[in-house]
Amino acid sequence: MGQGSGGREWIAEKIVQLFDKSVLKPLRAGKVPLFEMLARTRDNVYIDQELQVIRLGSKKVKRRLNDVEEAKTFMRTVLVAAIIYEAIKHNKYPTIRDVFYDAKHTIPGTDIDTVNEQSESDSIIEDLEVMLGTSREEMGLQTDVKCKVVGLMRVRSGRDVIDCSRQGEGGAYTPPSNVDRLEFLDVNAEYVLVVEKDAVFNTLNMERYWEKNKCILVTAGGQPDRPARRLVKRLNEELGLPVYVLTDADPYGFYIYSVYRIGSITLSHESVRLACPKARFIGVTVSDIYEYKLPKNVIIKAKEADVKRARELKGYPWFQSPAWQRELDLFLERKEKAEIEALSSKSLGFLEDKYLPEKISSGHFII
Amino acid sequence: MGQGSGGREWIAEKIVQLFDKSVLKPLRAGKVPLFEMLARTRDNVYIDQELQVIRLGSKKVKRRLNDVEEAKTFMRTVLVAAIIYEAIKHNKYPTIRDVFYDAKHTIPGTDIDTVNEQSESDSIIEDLEVMLGTSREEMGLQTDVKCKVVGLMRVRSGRDVIDCSRQGEGGAYTPPSNVDRLEFLDVNAEYVLVVEKDAVFNTLNMERYWEKNKCILVTAGGQPDRPARRLVKRLNEELGLPVYVLTDADPYGFYIYSVYRIGSITLSHESVRLACPKARFIGVTVSDIYEYKLPKNVIIKAKEADVKRARELKGYPWFQSPAWQRELDLFLERKEKAEIEALSSKSLGFLEDKYLPEKISSGHFII
Repeated sequence: MGQGSGGREWIAEKIVQLFDKSVLKPLRAGKVPLFEMLARTRDNVYIDQELQVIRLGSKKVKRRLNDVEEAKTFMRTVLVAAIIYEAIKHNKYPTIRDVFYDAKHTIPGTDIDTVNEQSESDSIIEDLEVMLGTSREEMGLQTDVKCKVVGLMRVRSGRDVIDCSRQGEGGAYTPPSNVDRLEFLDVNAEYVLVVEKDAVFNTLNMERYWEKNKCILVTAGGQPDRPARRLVKRLNEELGLPVYVLTDADPYGFYIYSVYRIGSITLSHESVRLACPKARFIGVTVSDIYEYKLPKNVIIKAKEADVKRARELKGYPWFQSPAWQRELDLFLERKEKAEIEALSSKSLGFLEDKYLPEKISSGHFII
Repeated sequence: MGQGSGGREWIAEKIVQLFDKSVLKPLRAGKVPLFEMLARTRDNVYIDQELQVIRLGSKKVKRRLNDVEEAKTFMRTVLVAAIIYEAIKHNKYPTIRDVFYDAKHTIPGTDIDTVNEQSESDSIIEDLEVMLGTSREEMGLQTDVKCKVVGLMRVRSGRDVIDCSRQGEGGAYTPPSNVDRLEFLDVNAEYVLVVEKDAVFNTLNMERYWEKNKCILVTAGGQPDRPARRLVKRLNEELGLPVYVLTDADPYGFYIYSVYRIGSITLSHESVRLACPKARFIGVTVSDIYEYKLPKNVIIKAKEADVKRARELKGYPWFQSPAWQRELDLFLERKEKAEIEALSSKSLGFLEDKYLPEKISSGHFII
């Protein structure tokens, strides 16, 4: 295997161990092969109060070879694990969709396919994340990466060192799926600003906000992908940099903030690796709409879906702070929202020249 | 204004000249101020046979101040041009949405807003592109940029030089909106491979396809943004690099190819700057599905929308080559499609180790 596998040897070894324990040993002993893992179900999810992340409980599920219901999942687990093992062995980095297609076979003598939908192989990949104690990114599996970074740090990645402050006029560095392989060097930033919107990130980057304000800018263009979340968490926890999240003043923006901070229930098994519980919300808050006296004609009437989502957020454990409850109550009372760019109605550059510096120097954040 | 405006002084001067000619001079002469420009309408679009791009015809439109219908557009033009002028003067790089919000005012004494929807200010920005002979990117206006690049070249951007072959393990360089400011250095690539899908780009990048095959990889994750199109065109025309486009074998993929090659009618005024008429389609072709004997269970039944789109493409002037007509006829006959990743059903790495090298060495492309 050697160096070619990009630091994935240990995962290949874990797959061998898993097969040994779950398949070979039972077979030799005349027992039924089975995979056992923590259940990734809603009823097996709890909030770790100390770490402030969503975690899996202790409920386990089994995939037995001799159970009619479980046999197909057992077979899929063997198939997908073998593909990942082969990928590591041959220094391949397939996409999760490649894995689906590579796993898809018609079982000889039947018209039954091993997998029908990508969700089936994806689910097995998540099982393997839990059983192997790793992530699909570390396994080398590829997905879309929307994350971009620019600012006062350098990162070592393989043989290269990328200077995130030398990306030219408005260019940026896009990290790989597996940001765990990045080594942070020469970090001269005082904080990390996570920007919901790609275009707003580009404005701040063109104006070298990160240089003037000694920070690192990150975006993932909306709903964050896993590399963006893992990167932000690492910057926060390994380097002690405060993380501030900037989104639109609407429940969808607040939800995006909560994904960075806590994660989503569907990815709860990854929450320990991805959630950044110390991430703070810098705005735009609902109160900002009125405190900064945004003109009436840039304020948008909330839709029914916004109101519904705000009511949901209000019940989430991680929105129980008095500050968040006030914000959500204010939203539900006024039923109005505003975008980050609405600040430009005050003047061009209001966001970067006034709003952000004011918020940061006053320490006016919500958590 | 000075150096701070990022090379945009000439645009500010052109705005002054435009105002002088269209507003001040007529006013001084007791005439009606008006803006005049080429019409960006469907009936004023033709295909330039020599350049093989969509162009605007000679039909002009006027925006007069004293016409009830046109006065609002006239006013908006003045407003948006003034915002862009101010942005250049103060070294600002607003998003097109910032421009919308900055332009939005309630006209005093009325309940009429200067602009109601972003499409209105966007349309004025397009008018200004035509009147000023520039692009919104050169004006410094920001949008989302999904484009990523990696491969055997370096680019100079402002004070920095970015080495696109030193982006680490699977990282990439994201160019700014205005790729015209990039200077290409040390290009050692033999071709440009444009990859429709971001995740497939990441696989090829992780496996250093660009190094093994001496090329430059570009993606824009689906429908290309303007920076991706402009970059690909520049690499093709300034450096003489062949451009190959890799998409799914379906009418949506073929359409994405056609956007790189020709452009879209709605952006016809930008086609001369953005279209890359020499871009060739490397695949996945409809014939590939059968020639490479993809297993039946990875071939997808076409939807009604696919069939409808294929029929449209068949009529487009830039799909009239015998090769494209054959492909579209085959699709319409079989009504089947396949994704790039379906090649992984042959074996992991089939795309990068066999399919692409075979296509490139055999010169088997469609145009």
